[in-house]
Amino acid sequence: MTDKPVLPMTKRDLLTLIGKAGGATAMYMAMSSLGQAQTSPFKGPIKLDGDARGASVLILGAGVAGLVAALELRRAGYKVQVLEFNNRVGGRSWTLRGGDSFTELGGATQQCTFAPGNYINPGPWRLPFNHYAIMHYCQELGVQLEPFMQLNYNAYIHSTRAFGGKPQRYRHIQADFYGHVSELLVKAVNKNALADAVTKEDSETLLAALRNWGSLDKDYRYATGKASSDRRGWTKGPGGGLTAEPVPSDPMNLDTVLQSGMWRNIGTSLSNEHQTAIFQPVGGMDMVARAFEREVGDLVRLNSKVTSIQQDGQGVTVAYIDTKTGAQMQAKADWCLCTIPLSILSQIEMNVDAPMANAIRAVPYEAGLKVGLEFKRRFWEQDEQIYGGITTTDLPISQISYPSSNFMAKGPATLLGAYTFGAFAYEYTSLSPAERIARAVEWGSQIHPQYKEEYLSGVAVGWHRVPWTQGCFGSWSEDARAEHYKNLCQIDGRILLAGEHASFIPAWQEGGITSSLDAISRLHQRVMAG
Amino acid sequence: MTDKPVLPMTKRDLLTLIGKAGGATAMYMAMSSLGQAQTSPFKGPIKLDGDARGASVLILGAGVAGLVAALELRRAGYKVQVLEFNNRVGGRSWTLRGGDSFTELGGATQQCTFAPGNYINPGPWRLPFNHYAIMHYCQELGVQLEPFMQLNYNAYIHSTRAFGGKPQRYRHIQADFYGHVSELLVKAVNKNALADAVTKEDSETLLAALRNWGSLDKDYRYATGKASSDRRGWTKGPGGGLTAEPVPSDPMNLDTVLQSGMWRNIGTSLSNEHQTAIFQPVGGMDMVARAFEREVGDLVRLNSKVTSIQQDGQGVTVAYIDTKTGAQMQAKADWCLCTIPLSILSQIEMNVDAPMANAIRAVPYEAGLKVGLEFKRRFWEQDEQIYGGITTTDLPISQISYPSSNFMAKGPATLLGAYTFGAFAYEYTSLSPAERIARAVEWGSQIHPQYKEEYLSGVAVGWHRVPWTQGCFGSWSEDARAEHYKNLCQIDGRILLAGEHASFIPAWQEGGITSSLDAISRLHQRVMAG
Repeated sequence: MTDKPVLPMTKRDLLTLIGKAGGATAMYMAMSSLGQAQTSPFKGPIKLDGDARGASVLILGAGVAGLVAALELRRAGYKVQVLEFNNRVGGRSWTLRGGDSFTELGGATQQCTFAPGNYINPGPWRLPFNHYAIMHYCQELGVQLEPFMQLNYNAYIHSTRAFGGKPQRYRHIQADFYGHVSELLVKAVNKNALADAVTKEDSETLLAALRNWGSLDKDYRYATGKASSDRRGWTKGPGGGLTAEPVPSDPMNLDTVLQSGMWRNIGTSLSNEHQTAIFQPVGGMDMVARAFEREVGDLVRLNSKVTSIQQDGQGVTVAYIDTKTGAQMQAKADWCLCTIPLSILSQIEMNVDAPMANAIRAVPYEAGLKVGLEFKRRFWEQDEQIYGGITTTDLPISQISYPSSNFMAKGPATLLGAYTFGAFAYEYTSLSPAERIARAVEWGSQIHPQYKEEYLSGVAVGWHRVPWTQGCFGSWSEDARAEHYKNLCQIDGRILLAGEHASFIPAWQEGGITSSLDAISRLHQRVMAG
Repeated sequence: MTDKPVLPMTKRDLLTLIGKAGGATAMYMAMSSLGQAQTSPFKGPIKLDGDARGASVLILGAGVAGLVAALELRRAGYKVQVLEFNNRVGGRSWTLRGGDSFTELGGATQQCTFAPGNYINPGPWRLPFNHYAIMHYCQELGVQLEPFMQLNYNAYIHSTRAFGGKPQRYRHIQADFYGHVSELLVKAVNKNALADAVTKEDSETLLAALRNWGSLDKDYRYATGKASSDRRGWTKGPGGGLTAEPVPSDPMNLDTVLQSGMWRNIGTSLSNEHQTAIFQPVGGMDMVARAFEREVGDLVRLNSKVTSIQQDGQGVTVAYIDTKTGAQMQAKADWCLCTIPLSILSQIEMNVDAPMANAIRAVPYEAGLKVGLEFKRRFWEQDEQIYGGITTTDLPISQISYPSSNFMAKGPATLLGAYTFGAFAYEYTSLSPAERIARAVEWGSQIHPQYKEEYLSGVAVGWHRVPWTQGCFGSWSEDARAEHYKNLCQIDGRILLAGEHASFIPAWQEGGITSSLDAISRLHQRVMAG
């Protein structure tokens, strides 16, 4: 563990980029707004009416896109088989628990030693209410959900460049930003500066609304007193008996809030995919894959590494290697639905026409990294009254997410000690797993000094080193999408693709599922027509 | 069930007041801001050092205030006994389940027929993270907590006076209010109208912050497009495959948002006692009382109705009736900690001096009413994608709170179909339980048309008809508090009081517990000094 947690300066261009973007938080936010629209067009169970007459479909990949296709195609009367590289279903919808091990590109193997019940989800970890398709399958397949604590007013915003590096409670930053915004707009209205934009009648209503929302005092000021403390908290909270009278806290002034840059951290929970209600499966995200497995596990051949996908007028032939035995194998079907990530698929022999072939190669994969850390106790709850939620920081770890379950439990607990994208993730992934973990502990201890004393173990997944994805998710530029997206999604002969990369909801399981449902609907139309 | 759900017009003055206040929502908000400051001064476990030398304390009332005193006083070496009117501990911290029955003043008895696992909490139902004392005891006593869904962006705001009575999704109102506020303040800054309040450097930062927070487009406008849809939702959400491109939704204009009055419903989740993280005990609020009962249940005598509290230089004598046998009983102790609600205590013979006697009579009790409704299925989840959270309305029911647990479960489920204070609650309580429930169904069906088809059963608790409280909570005016609060809390001879009524956190269990801890600390000092 180094004294100064500084990344190796080997990629100056990337670090320059980071600096420009304003640190990891800004980068995360840029990433999360880049083409990641978040609701879903799912309108209810898919209907594949008509007789498939025993047509066969070979599905490549048993992530959620492949699994949902297997489920719905078999229901519609198709003969289905699924080839999966890993020795488990789920793909990136994956949970690491004690006893699991994971070998990354380069050969480093991590043994997860978390206590029973503790886990991290290296891939997707949240299910927003408006991801209607995956919510539908959770309901149908009996996946038990619990609230995911996206926003916690008592978690921190941390910046190395503000408040001397001392983390601030989220509620202080938001309450003071809202209060000052409200007071400023009141001033502007009272100066008649907005007469062209707001009618006189509306102005009076607007003043009342601003006072209500910003918690201004009777003079429409955001100042020390009951109204502001009712939002940001008290210096001494009210209680009972004779020592009970509350003492208000002092709001920060506007300049402090603005110059801290911490206002950047307010918007996230307002966006579609982070609004409440938002959920996680009880026990880990792979409960979704396990639920699908109960339905279609019999169709899935694990440990099957696809090496070639060839079609002709009659059907599709897929060559694969049994990774346990090394045996060369072959599978045939009338149709092939391929959900293999483009980062891998672009390395596999495949006879599709130029439009799809070019599209497959047109999509770079975003870097992503998660570090799960296990500690001896829930010090964030016990010492700091943070029950779930996310602390954000401009350190390369980007965020710390506290567990949304088993609140107040005694004994070891895991938190997500780093979740970052882009340049930081590239840099971070280039380190050994042990070093990634050591740095997450080092950086995190700037926010929680208890880290070093309480640390037990960790796992670190850098997605560019995950052998079966070599990247986190398909990162579409607007230009690439305009040129290649339709070519990627259209049926090429007897082959069609699905997955989050074939969607407008990259990185989310909802993209994979809705992409798969769209693909099999078109496939079914083709079969019915043919 | 009447066709027109109009309350009997017997109390015109109250209804006039309601009209002025802008409906039930406004009333609720007025109530909830009236002296209800919400954090807590609790700093950790109480320390009662020194030898109590076998001093005895008689505690009246086994609500949370009485129970915590019993726990801590016995630990400190006191001889403790507790008298409780009901046949259970917990007081207002109370859960109604199938099989429970409840008889109110006037004699009406309700049998709760909810299916196993379904319940409502007629009294307290939420545990905010900043209610440190009750959170401490939940941790210590092993009360399992789960997140309470206070805010759900997909729940409704409903007003009979806006949008033709059609409920609006919360996210539309908030996103559009925030967007327009943001855009207006940008305009004011750009007009240089706030040069006296914001420096030039801060102005530029402020513009960036407003764009980020309000989700303005690149021209700093809140208009139809990706940025606004990312907050308020899309007309057609993005998905996967070839029919996947999202279609933005159209924001409402500012005038519509303001004139709807629905901006009044935005602030609640920002206030201290409603911010995340906020919890409920798994299985019902009475799990808190049951946890205390495991510790001190042996000290509590149930079914004991106190009729007289008399002290002299040597101790306190309490007369009570065994409500099962009618037998006249007596209990004696060196000291008495009385947690009986003032609404009841003011009717009991008690020889305290004028200051405390006057204080006991100085606090009116707020009216409150809750209706729990059981339905055949979770139509709010299945049909409307509302998973937990609260719909607010200007109808007399004030709010509908959807269950925060067992999401997606099949079969019957309960929701809170009315929770209202003040004039509406007085009116509503004056009806028979059956009529209260019928009206909750009638009114609620204006928001959820499924109500009538799916309704199974209900229970309705109007707190002014609850025999052992005759009111919901102590409603202190500022004047009354200035004159009487200290006199209420001070020790009078050998008698002292505790409960939410003896706190600055009325209506919350935190007030009862911190009041009790403060009282027993002072009692212990007195004993140690004596």
